[in-house]
Amino acid sequence: MSTSTQSSRDINLSNIPISKSGFENALLEIKELVGVENVKLDLDERLHFSRSTLAQGTVPSAIIKPNSRQEVEAIVKISNEYRLHVHPISSGKNWGYSDACAVMDGQLLLDLSRMNRILEVNESLGYITIEPGVTQGQVYEYLIKNKIKLWMDATGAGPDTSIIGNTMDRGFGHSPYGDRYGHSCGYEVVLPSGKVLNTGFGRFENSKVTEVYKWGVGPSVDGLFTQSNFGIVTKMTLWLMPAPEDFCVVGFMLKEENDIAELIERLRPLRMDGTLKSVIHIGNDLRLVSMSQSYPFEEMERSVSLSMEKRKELARKHGIGFWSGTAGLYGSSDQVAADLKKIKKALKGFKGLKNFVVFTEKRLDMIKKAIGLLNHFGFAKELATLVEKATLGFELLKGKSPKTCVQGGLWRVKNQHSLAPIDSTNPLDYNAGFYWISPVLPMQGLHIKNLISIVEPIFHRYGFDLQQTISMTTERALTSVMTISFDKKNEVESQKAKLCHDEVVQRLMTEGYIIYRAGNHTMKFVSEENSTFHEFLSSVKNAIDPQQTISPGKYLSAQ
Amino acid sequence: MSTSTQSSRDINLSNIPISKSGFENALLEIKELVGVENVKLDLDERLHFSRSTLAQGTVPSAIIKPNSRQEVEAIVKISNEYRLHVHPISSGKNWGYSDACAVMDGQLLLDLSRMNRILEVNESLGYITIEPGVTQGQVYEYLIKNKIKLWMDATGAGPDTSIIGNTMDRGFGHSPYGDRYGHSCGYEVVLPSGKVLNTGFGRFENSKVTEVYKWGVGPSVDGLFTQSNFGIVTKMTLWLMPAPEDFCVVGFMLKEENDIAELIERLRPLRMDGTLKSVIHIGNDLRLVSMSQSYPFEEMERSVSLSMEKRKELARKHGIGFWSGTAGLYGSSDQVAADLKKIKKALKGFKGLKNFVVFTEKRLDMIKKAIGLLNHFGFAKELATLVEKATLGFELLKGKSPKTCVQGGLWRVKNQHSLAPIDSTNPLDYNAGFYWISPVLPMQGLHIKNLISIVEPIFHRYGFDLQQTISMTTERALTSVMTISFDKKNEVESQKAKLCHDEVVQRLMTEGYIIYRAGNHTMKFVSEENSTFHEFLSSVKNAIDPQQTISPGKYLSAQ
Repeated sequence: MSTSTQSSRDINLSNIPISKSGFENALLEIKELVGVENVKLDLDERLHFSRSTLAQGTVPSAIIKPNSRQEVEAIVKISNEYRLHVHPISSGKNWGYSDACAVMDGQLLLDLSRMNRILEVNESLGYITIEPGVTQGQVYEYLIKNKIKLWMDATGAGPDTSIIGNTMDRGFGHSPYGDRYGHSCGYEVVLPSGKVLNTGFGRFENSKVTEVYKWGVGPSVDGLFTQSNFGIVTKMTLWLMPAPEDFCVVGFMLKEENDIAELIERLRPLRMDGTLKSVIHIGNDLRLVSMSQSYPFEEMERSVSLSMEKRKELARKHGIGFWSGTAGLYGSSDQVAADLKKIKKALKGFKGLKNFVVFTEKRLDMIKKAIGLLNHFGFAKELATLVEKATLGFELLKGKSPKTCVQGGLWRVKNQHSLAPIDSTNPLDYNAGFYWISPVLPMQGLHIKNLISIVEPIFHRYGFDLQQTISMTTERALTSVMTISFDKKNEVESQKAKLCHDEVVQRLMTEGYIIYRAGNHTMKFVSEENSTFHEFLSSVKNAIDPQQTISPGKYLSAQ
Repeated sequence: MSTSTQSSRDINLSNIPISKSGFENALLEIKELVGVENVKLDLDERLHFSRSTLAQGTVPSAIIKPNSRQEVEAIVKISNEYRLHVHPISSGKNWGYSDACAVMDGQLLLDLSRMNRILEVNESLGYITIEPGVTQGQVYEYLIKNKIKLWMDATGAGPDTSIIGNTMDRGFGHSPYGDRYGHSCGYEVVLPSGKVLNTGFGRFENSKVTEVYKWGVGPSVDGLFTQSNFGIVTKMTLWLMPAPEDFCVVGFMLKEENDIAELIERLRPLRMDGTLKSVIHIGNDLRLVSMSQSYPFEEMERSVSLSMEKRKELARKHGIGFWSGTAGLYGSSDQVAADLKKIKKALKGFKGLKNFVVFTEKRLDMIKKAIGLLNHFGFAKELATLVEKATLGFELLKGKSPKTCVQGGLWRVKNQHSLAPIDSTNPLDYNAGFYWISPVLPMQGLHIKNLISIVEPIFHRYGFDLQQTISMTTERALTSVMTISFDKKNEVESQKAKLCHDEVVQRLMTEGYIIYRAGNHTMKFVSEENSTFHEFLSSVKNAIDPQQTISPGKYLSAQ
């Protein structure tokens, strides 16, 4: 692992000359191509795209909004000719991992959000073919409106996030199809040469099987275009699950921090044998509290990490346990009942379980009515929280991402609710500051204990709260997403957040809990020079993109 | 798609000079390295490795048997120095797709069968880490002997086939983990430079998550090393499924050829929703008959494709329907019962269903005893066949590959049973001739009808029988493996088999049913020159293997 401390912004590209007049000539050609209204050069617009949830973003030299693959091809060719750098974004969210920002200042930002066509939906075979600007909200609405009995995997990041963008970063959602990269295929890619490559069987002109089988024949290259700078994906097929006959959501809470270890041990066999088909998301107290309130600034003298006493107090106030989670069950009513029986058996005698409730859609409606009558009792408060979370879980697992702002990221935003009313699901509109750090762990309780014992002291030392989720992402791996929330208006706190991020990531890499995804600020930890892997990727990059036209420095330090 | 008719053996490597003395010097160094007893140069041995189930194989210049990754590294470096070509094999089976043969004559065959160590088994997380020489029989025995409650995915190709070899060709087995490539990770690869690359998280020295998560961070390159000539995989982790609480096998037969279309329509929703977790294999009449007997040479004047009347007669004799298949059900007894109920509901009123039997292990033993009493009735014969197939299915789904020779490949071998007793599971020991052609289809009945209407007339025109399986390989794709069995001793029939193969593959590519895997004889159809894909792969190949050291021509026509 690299111990390099070279900042990603220091990367040397001085061997690639960019003349001012070259830039201007290129822009003239591009304006001709996409229309002057789709090329933005003014500083305000450029600064708008440089906004970041991190301590610092980068500023593009221009924003270009093509409307077709053909336009993307032409823009890449022009960029090659004038030796410019192009950084593609789909909808440009990627909050917590560096937003719409290229690794370096001064790149042409290729905003693909206008390319938002749904090209095909196949209900019988369960797939949808889309362009990069297509959002998860758009697909959800499309399926509902057209009464198509398929469910899309949704992430909790809101309806306006791009599916292709998230898939190319190998993000994960909540459903049985939560591994989005694993459930996508048939990419159409504009290469750094400006030529178009089709992956899988898509390269065969008459193929009838591009959309149903991922690997194709010959070397399988899909993976090369994820978390990389090897091409611009302009089309993709995403698999959708058939709407189940019956569906319910299990909601549960745990009493203490350590109880998560035993829970994972009890549930692992069920995740491995397919009883638990969906990605099980479990959030800690602070993660849940931060869905409903900000850091209690008014009660604290200064922003430090909350004590365990304070955390317990907040948890009581919100009626939650230390951990809260949901899981979806799918199938015929018999299958769901059999799965449920097995889960109950696995949790029998588990003292750490605070509560465990099974929600069907019907039952959820009934309980909601009952809570209306009981809401002044303490019991009802706890149940109300569980019901609220289960309702969100229900909708999310059915493909509907919440229209609230990304959870937890506003924790240290002061007076967020007293601002002039903001109707936005974009944390950048709230000037929210947060880093996401997401290591992978073997699905064993001891590793979670180990992880927390490593990271929590570091968070606390820098004055931050450990907002944490643990997700049973695959059959044998956990992903923990940890949020460093900070006040962007506070320069010292921003600096601390950056230092805290670096120290946590560095320690995780040393301990072997490797992060599954990196933002610009994290590239230095995963793009270690002087390694065979780096040398191999650099050979490939130089062979297909000798001028470093596409996103130099992204997941691969520039030459 | 390419319409090139260039033979794979004509590929021009004349720009890479190989001097005789260079070869001799290289061999001296290699003998020093691996021991003289592990370098085979004599013609008999070389011809042994050139044996092929196809009409023709290729002859290596030497066979080298290293015992460690370090030896592989050194051999690749020596080959680079002396500009030799190295073709790695694991156990070197790959029957029907070109066996142990390199694309061209005269390459150094790197036989990795001595590297057969099981490096780690993790029962809690369900994985095994192995070297290339490890066979599926070896792992099965290891798990049984050590009472490890994990099941390995097995293919029907017998106990002596390599798991890594099959995975690198993206072969598939029968279980829920049938997509072996999709269930493997953490490759250790000797690159053409002789350097070692670790994929996924394996590139991080301290990684604790290499074995549990496939994609790693940054570009995911696993796919590059499958069906390719980009490196030599010397270590791999394969995921194993937890042994289920309860398990049963459903066996079924269909009456007529066309009934398969309706079956697929009825079962698709169950494969897609996870009720049917395993790869469902369905074989036609000839495929099943060929498990028990050869082509009825004695009843025929000459070897032509059997008439439908003759096929019906054979099916009656063997007590089978037109199609026969098996599926595994896994879970708690409640889960299995719920799954079964759903399957029965899906098949209700299906007139094409000849029979449908559910076998538990206990029930199978009981039925076997009953059959002992009834075996002179016609009913018992049909049941006996079903029981026999279910028993094989049982064992196969539990990870035990049959110790019989690869099914169907001996169909046109004359007098196979009257030869001097051969105790071998290797069809090469029987001088069997067969080509496998394996297109992928969308999981819809109409595509199977379409496929059969395309290929059957071609098979018949050349005088061959269509031995065919249809597998529900993934949630939305079918793979059909079709065997062209021929008599290797008959020169004309061998030529016909080759022509038949080429015509069938050519038609399939035109119709859009692309093959998922290719042998040397099929490379020309999937390595189309003058395409962006070919240009892209060639750039990568030339960047990492400028001297074409590893397997020139494999899935990528040499430059």
